[in-house]
Amino acid sequence: MNLTNPFCDADGDKLREECGIFGVIGAREAAPMTALGLHALQHRGQEAVGITSFDGQEFYSRRGTGHVAANFSSAEALAELPGIMAAGHVRYSTTGGSGLRNVQPLFADLASGGFAIAHNGNISNAMHLKYDLVQKGAIFQSTSDTEVIIHLVATSRYPTLLDRFIDALRLVEGAYSLICMTPAGMIACRDPLGIRPLVMGKLGDATVFASETVALDVIGADFLREVEPGELVEVDLDGAVRTHRPFGDPPARPCIFEHVYFSRPDSLMGGSSVYEVRKAIGRELARESLADADMVIPVPDSGVPAALGYAQESGLPFELGIIRSHYVGRTFIQPSDGARNADVKRKHNANRAIVAGKRIVLVDDSIVRGTTSLKIVQMMRDAGAAEVHMRIASPPTEHSCFYGVDTPERSKLLAARMDVAAMAEFIQADSLAFVSLDGLYRAVGLKGRNAACPQYCDACFSGEYPTRLTDLADRDRPAQLDLPVA
Amino acid sequence: MNLTNPFCDADGDKLREECGIFGVIGAREAAPMTALGLHALQHRGQEAVGITSFDGQEFYSRRGTGHVAANFSSAEALAELPGIMAAGHVRYSTTGGSGLRNVQPLFADLASGGFAIAHNGNISNAMHLKYDLVQKGAIFQSTSDTEVIIHLVATSRYPTLLDRFIDALRLVEGAYSLICMTPAGMIACRDPLGIRPLVMGKLGDATVFASETVALDVIGADFLREVEPGELVEVDLDGAVRTHRPFGDPPARPCIFEHVYFSRPDSLMGGSSVYEVRKAIGRELARESLADADMVIPVPDSGVPAALGYAQESGLPFELGIIRSHYVGRTFIQPSDGARNADVKRKHNANRAIVAGKRIVLVDDSIVRGTTSLKIVQMMRDAGAAEVHMRIASPPTEHSCFYGVDTPERSKLLAARMDVAAMAEFIQADSLAFVSLDGLYRAVGLKGRNAACPQYCDACFSGEYPTRLTDLADRDRPAQLDLPVA
Amino acid sequence: MNLTNPFCDADGDKLREECGIFGVIGAREAAPMTALGLHALQHRGQEAVGITSFDGQEFYSRRGTGHVAANFSSAEALAELPGIMAAGHVRYSTTGGSGLRNVQPLFADLASGGFAIAHNGNISNAMHLKYDLVQKGAIFQSTSDTEVIIHLVATSRYPTLLDRFIDALRLVEGAYSLICMTPAGMIACRDPLGIRPLVMGKLGDATVFASETVALDVIGADFLREVEPGELVEVDLDGAVRTHRPFGDPPARPCIFEHVYFSRPDSLMGGSSVYEVRKAIGRELARESLADADMVIPVPDSGVPAALGYAQESGLPFELGIIRSHYVGRTFIQPSDGARNADVKRKHNANRAIVAGKRIVLVDDSIVRGTTSLKIVQMMRDAGAAEVHMRIASPPTEHSCFYGVDTPERSKLLAARMDVAAMAEFIQADSLAFVSLDGLYRAVGLKGRNAACPQYCDACFSGEYPTRLTDLADRDRPAQLDLPVA
Amino acid sequence: MNLTNPFCDADGDKLREECGIFGVIGAREAAPMTALGLHALQHRGQEAVGITSFDGQEFYSRRGTGHVAANFSSAEALAELPGIMAAGHVRYSTTGGSGLRNVQPLFADLASGGFAIAHNGNISNAMHLKYDLVQKGAIFQSTSDTEVIIHLVATSRYPTLLDRFIDALRLVEGAYSLICMTPAGMIACRDPLGIRPLVMGKLGDATVFASETVALDVIGADFLREVEPGELVEVDLDGAVRTHRPFGDPPARPCIFEHVYFSRPDSLMGGSSVYEVRKAIGRELARESLADADMVIPVPDSGVPAALGYAQESGLPFELGIIRSHYVGRTFIQPSDGARNADVKRKHNANRAIVAGKRIVLVDDSIVRGTTSLKIVQMMRDAGAAEVHMRIASPPTEHSCFYGVDTPERSKLLAARMDVAAMAEFIQADSLAFVSLDGLYRAVGLKGRNAACPQYCDACFSGEYPTRLTDLADRDRPAQLDLPVA
Repeated sequence: MNLTNPFCDADGDKLREECGIFGVIGAREAAPMTALGLHALQHRGQEAVGITSFDGQEFYSRRGTGHVAANFSSAEALAELPGIMAAGHVRYSTTGGSGLRNVQPLFADLASGGFAIAHNGNISNAMHLKYDLVQKGAIFQSTSDTEVIIHLVATSRYPTLLDRFIDALRLVEGAYSLICMTPAGMIACRDPLGIRPLVMGKLGDATVFASETVALDVIGADFLREVEPGELVEVDLDGAVRTHRPFGDPPARPCIFEHVYFSRPDSLMGGSSVYEVRKAIGRELARESLADADMVIPVPDSGVPAALGYAQESGLPFELGIIRSHYVGRTFIQPSDGARNADVKRKHNANRAIVAGKRIVLVDDSIVRGTTSLKIVQMMRDAGAAEVHMRIASPPTEHSCFYGVDTPERSKLLAARMDVAAMAEFIQADSLAFVSLDGLYRAVGLKGRNAACPQYCDACFSGEYPTRLTDLADRDRPAQLDLPVA
Repeated sequence: MNLTNPFCDADGDKLREECGIFGVIGAREAAPMTALGLHALQHRGQEAVGITSFDGQEFYSRRGTGHVAANFSSAEALAELPGIMAAGHVRYSTTGGSGLRNVQPLFADLASGGFAIAHNGNISNAMHLKYDLVQKGAIFQSTSDTEVIIHLVATSRYPTLLDRFIDALRLVEGAYSLICMTPAGMIACRDPLGIRPLVMGKLGDATVFASETVALDVIGADFLREVEPGELVEVDLDGAVRTHRPFGDPPARPCIFEHVYFSRPDSLMGGSSVYEVRKAIGRELARESLADADMVIPVPDSGVPAALGYAQESGLPFELGIIRSHYVGRTFIQPSDGARNADVKRKHNANRAIVAGKRIVLVDDSIVRGTTSLKIVQMMRDAGAAEVHMRIASPPTEHSCFYGVDTPERSKLLAARMDVAAMAEFIQADSLAFVSLDGLYRAVGLKGRNAACPQYCDACFSGEYPTRLTDLADRDRPAQLDLPVA
Repeated sequence: MNLTNPFCDADGDKLREECGIFGVIGAREAAPMTALGLHALQHRGQEAVGITSFDGQEFYSRRGTGHVAANFSSAEALAELPGIMAAGHVRYSTTGGSGLRNVQPLFADLASGGFAIAHNGNISNAMHLKYDLVQKGAIFQSTSDTEVIIHLVATSRYPTLLDRFIDALRLVEGAYSLICMTPAGMIACRDPLGIRPLVMGKLGDATVFASETVALDVIGADFLREVEPGELVEVDLDGAVRTHRPFGDPPARPCIFEHVYFSRPDSLMGGSSVYEVRKAIGRELARESLADADMVIPVPDSGVPAALGYAQESGLPFELGIIRSHYVGRTFIQPSDGARNADVKRKHNANRAIVAGKRIVLVDDSIVRGTTSLKIVQMMRDAGAAEVHMRIASPPTEHSCFYGVDTPERSKLLAARMDVAAMAEFIQADSLAFVSLDGLYRAVGLKGRNAACPQYCDACFSGEYPTRLTDLADRDRPAQLDLPVA
Repeated sequence: MNLTNPFCDADGDKLREECGIFGVIGAREAAPMTALGLHALQHRGQEAVGITSFDGQEFYSRRGTGHVAANFSSAEALAELPGIMAAGHVRYSTTGGSGLRNVQPLFADLASGGFAIAHNGNISNAMHLKYDLVQKGAIFQSTSDTEVIIHLVATSRYPTLLDRFIDALRLVEGAYSLICMTPAGMIACRDPLGIRPLVMGKLGDATVFASETVALDVIGADFLREVEPGELVEVDLDGAVRTHRPFGDPPARPCIFEHVYFSRPDSLMGGSSVYEVRKAIGRELARESLADADMVIPVPDSGVPAALGYAQESGLPFELGIIRSHYVGRTFIQPSDGARNADVKRKHNANRAIVAGKRIVLVDDSIVRGTTSLKIVQMMRDAGAAEVHMRIASPPTEHSCFYGVDTPERSKLLAARMDVAAMAEFIQADSLAFVSLDGLYRAVGLKGRNAACPQYCDACFSGEYPTRLTDLADRDRPAQLDLPVA
């Protein structure tokens, strides 16, 4: 999402989805619904949140850093956002001194009237396009790739807003699920490969769009269908829905990691229950890499469904050998004497009475840098575990993502630096196994991966990126585009 | 903890432990350790936190509202708390305009020097004692029952601080686990019945006290033993430990609800793993009240261990049919159109794909008012559950607690108002069953409840209070003691 | 400064200068100097402040609401603003929900590099120009008229930044003193009529620009000269100074009200001491409208110099009959019983012992709505004054200002609604007199006003506006330009 | 006011009154009146403010740091303070980490009911009394000397509150003007010497007490009389007023410095106008130490009345040669290159056009450390003054105050370290003169000072302290009383 640095050296040891989006049109209380919907998508972005609404006359915006509940739970906050149409955005990171400028929805007053946009994804030629726009006199307000789309719309020569918008998207490459608002209504669309998710629901006369179905559940809306890859859905203020397919019909490549980790287990994604897919991954893993052990223990919370599947398939008992604290908050100062790994322990504590003297299988969703896995294995050994077998519910993560997921640069990915045996040694596990790429495809309900034309974007595992990566190729040229801290 | 109102109409639908305490003496970084320890006890009190330290010369205090991490994770905050001895407190509620005055540890400058005290429990004759003290010229700073102890110490005629302290405790009735600090060292003690928990650990030369063993785990300390009911442990600044038993040796009555709900599952309590006891309750429940169903679903997170036990005993599959959001925060404004029970849904969402068409057993730890149970049953039915059987891992909660647990007044307890059949109807479950009181005692490892002399305080279930309740009897007299908002 | 509403119904009863600007280039500590300089200009704008600096590589900005001291007195704040070039801005008002977007300096990343601009004045065809720019695809970030200049620069076809800047200014009408920064250096300029002030100073090798000379005094810089009306001064990072006069040499029309009220008395303006000019106005007033009285009393603080002049000319004693509180702060809730005019009294209190039984001459700088004058006259009578003669050190303010001064709309100006006799009755004074327009011109050192070609802009007194007022004429057209609250 | 350190190394270079107090009984809107009254007393204490009210049933308190307007101007704040009786306090300093505990009014719940107290002054045997109280079991909440009075009242054996209060005051030595509230009404009193001021007024049926008459003016109350030294005035809730003189009738010794600097010029003090007395001091000074000069310039704002008196007596013109900024705020970072004395200049700027080439007389109220005087003389010379003659409207300040005025310790007082000639050299003035002690007594309307029995407390000039200074004599003993930061 940030033009200046597609890599982010996150201190957490997980890949992170960078955004969640939500929009509703035709509801009497559009902003309160949007707040609830975004709250259900909070796992997709915890650092900033914004909502823009339209009351038939004017657009209203409110943004803040932190969680949805901290910014949008009061009647006062929501009273600033009147109208029957609203859209919102949660995001993972805001960079540096840029304050709230990069918090979406972005808004601009175009010749055609107001235009608001919320984006999940990443535009892989944004710097290239920005360079051209600035040469022509465009002034950027943010360092967000999303703003490129607005300027392309503003300077397009087509007569209607819809044509200008399609004209703009034709120039853009990468991943985007978008929810836009104009004085005429809402436009939702998904890039031709459908890399990032976007679903559509119905609540009475209102139409709802969201990154995941859980956001429909929370407001009581019915799930209608996914917005199709390459589809653009227009909804008027009076409720009329029109669909367009301006980019033809190329084969889709949705992100497979949504099933592994990003999405909530209670969401439906690509027609399947995320929870069921994760359990199926656990079953594949048990079939592929059974361990001789006394019990299966999930690394909470993301490893739980796969661990359940592993336990059910293997017949080993499922036990909560690690207890996760609900109160995480900021990192604490660690006392130097004594307290080894206090920072991991305050999030995850070994259930010592259960694991002491036992041979355990730990199930986690993925390994990124490996530092957390190492600490968890140590913690289990400190608690007296006799053997620790690590099982991972995804293939090795060897490549960075350029489509809106926060990944460390490649050199910091453990799987890019060593093979599985070395990784096992690094994390000090008695054994380590990952589900195979084909196993993962089977878990999502396919026969296996079609190597000629993969059914998903699995670039983080395979290195096969489904789009051009123009800015990455350009790396040395656009130094002059780096925006000052302003 | 609050003199003016032992009842609290909490908006949550759980009994709530009101406090957690932690102290360490002899550690180079006593305050950072205390912060970590309190963080591990955060589930025992989320609304305010304080730490007091002593550097051999002076006492230092810092308090705040909200979580430990928000108040004590920075180096700046901890730098205000130098010294090798520190004690801290997390608490559930602070009342009204009283600001930070009631946040513990309380501190006073006595003739013998500084005296700091952190208290978990509730003194059931505090108003009575306060009335007498005020008549003699004592000026109270807080509305906390704990302050009564300080004034009793200050006005005792005994020559040594220890004798004054014991003199004070002799006048006090109710539940108290205390950690105190004087310029000479730390004193930890537990009321004669041992109603509230307190454990003792060791980290190198340092001695550590805490409400639960998890707080020892997080700093890497070893669990030594529980402070015994009626025991008073004195630790000098040079590490010497002395133990006293000034109240003789009456049979203990620790709170049985700590096993059911208050304590963390990874704690050891009374010699048993809390997690194992909860699983054992689930097994008892399955034996006592098996349901003919397709799967067992925990109400997360507190129902999980009992549900695992129920599933293992019954042979029914254990499934995550309810997904709990990690992002709870404040209550949201609920849109009036459509969204039924949005406020429950944003915390717990039905995993629709799993439960649709299924007969489910829901396992929860307790029923207080019943309002949340009703909403969860509705949510499961809305998600398509064919039958909903509720199983509760404690007996019916029929009585208020006066020993430091936040309970609604009796008239609001569902079990005080109706029998089990009526409760089942109220929450709209197809069936409802509670574990029996004897089953609960079996789960903690006994043969059953000794009716003549119960081994635990189970007053919330049985109505048999193990101490006098002087203030409750006095109800009309001490009106003139109500403190102004100051 | 705000496009949407040139009128502002201020709750104070004074005209208010809307901005002060300051810039320095070639100083090791440019930002700390700018903070001090802006502090000395705080009377020109109290509601928001911003500073932008350049360190040879990047631009840095920091903005805030409130006073300079509250935002820029800490080492941390100033450490965010490295470099040898900095410019800053204080402003009177920020409108509505627009937050910090309108706080200057504005910054944009143009094809030529960064461009920062701080503006004192008002562009009287800004809405007209903005309409055209938006039609061509420009996206505005603020509702400030100043942003129009940036877009005109960004879209100009001239090859160099200087030519683009001059090209932009040719399209602009109204009042502007500007301090701009580019990666090459600083550009300061003043509109062809020189309506708003701008001075130039020297401190060692550094060049300084500021709205008033007091800002030079505070940092110890020497006053060099005023930037001439229509002059554009370019200063390179290496210190080279070049001057340009792109608009020819029309006769200047600086604002005469700067002498009456806006500027600080210790500033030099147009070659004269502001303090001496104000005393001279007082002397003119005494000659034109002597009152038979016992003493001269200034309405503090702005009336003090004119009252001293009046006292010296008339021979009447000068006494502090009104004491001004230094602690003004927010408006208080007024108790309904008793306290008449408490809100005026908490700012100004009658020195009852001095005025009781006396015939007094009150000297104030101007009358805007007349409401404050009425309350002060009442206060003096309540304190026992026998007669109250009001003398005003400016002609009647009959017209609104469109050049960067905050004036009520014309219908609220007392002098636009009634003649002097009626005004005297309205404020309940025994007599009322204003200095004549010619008297005012004499006080600034001229023979009198040249009616054919006035030497100053005195539109607020005479209604003779020295520029076209395009937006005012356009009033009905640009409704579609009103920006949403964003 | 603070027990631990009667000296305060203030960074300003003025003696500072440490408190102002205000109370009203019988007014429908007691708290809003108290807020306005305290605002008028803001010059007596800027760092913290508190108000306590009583509504016939309960006491309500609200405190804050900073100005009255920042804490008590909103309807919400005042709505927390219902009732027809209220009292408030502004204070100069709050020490260390003690937060709001020392902010007055102090409140305690005694056996007789609530008791609130606001104190202006300092108790010179507070540490001594506190030691005894703590030995008897008293627990102090604050480090304020005022709390000693409350504990003395609480532990007194007399039957009525009034008798207990008088009993307490008999034990106390030093300076105190007090406003107290009980459920029965208000008690105002002044120590037997009447060191600190206290006046009484009437507004309809309401009775008002305040440190100065300006606080009566702002709410429109009539000045009735001063509370007499040693007098105790009791006002019931129904308006009945009773006066008591429990301490007999010793000759009074009010603080003469109130006339020189502390009080506002528009107050009446001891029957005289403060403004007139200051002018009279200026006249005495002109008679005693005329300078051959061109003009008289006040050091604003406190030197203005004396400078006017000096000018009128000497016939020299009065000119504003120093302009004081209204926007002071925090100290700024000073750029190292160039800006000499920027920190003084941002508060006071030379009016260069007036003073250049002139022989000037500067008139200031007092010299404490001399550092500011030095900078101001330098500033006038930098602005071109030919000669600078400093005249001071008080005798040399040679001794510390122990009666509620913030003075540096004696070794930092310039006049304690050197004679007048050396002081002139230190501040680099061409001449320096102070008014004589007899001249000061003449200015307040007496024939001169009665050396046998001075009519005022002038200890800061003469070293003759009118009370015992027990704590000062005790200095080494009460180390064990120092309260920890709590």
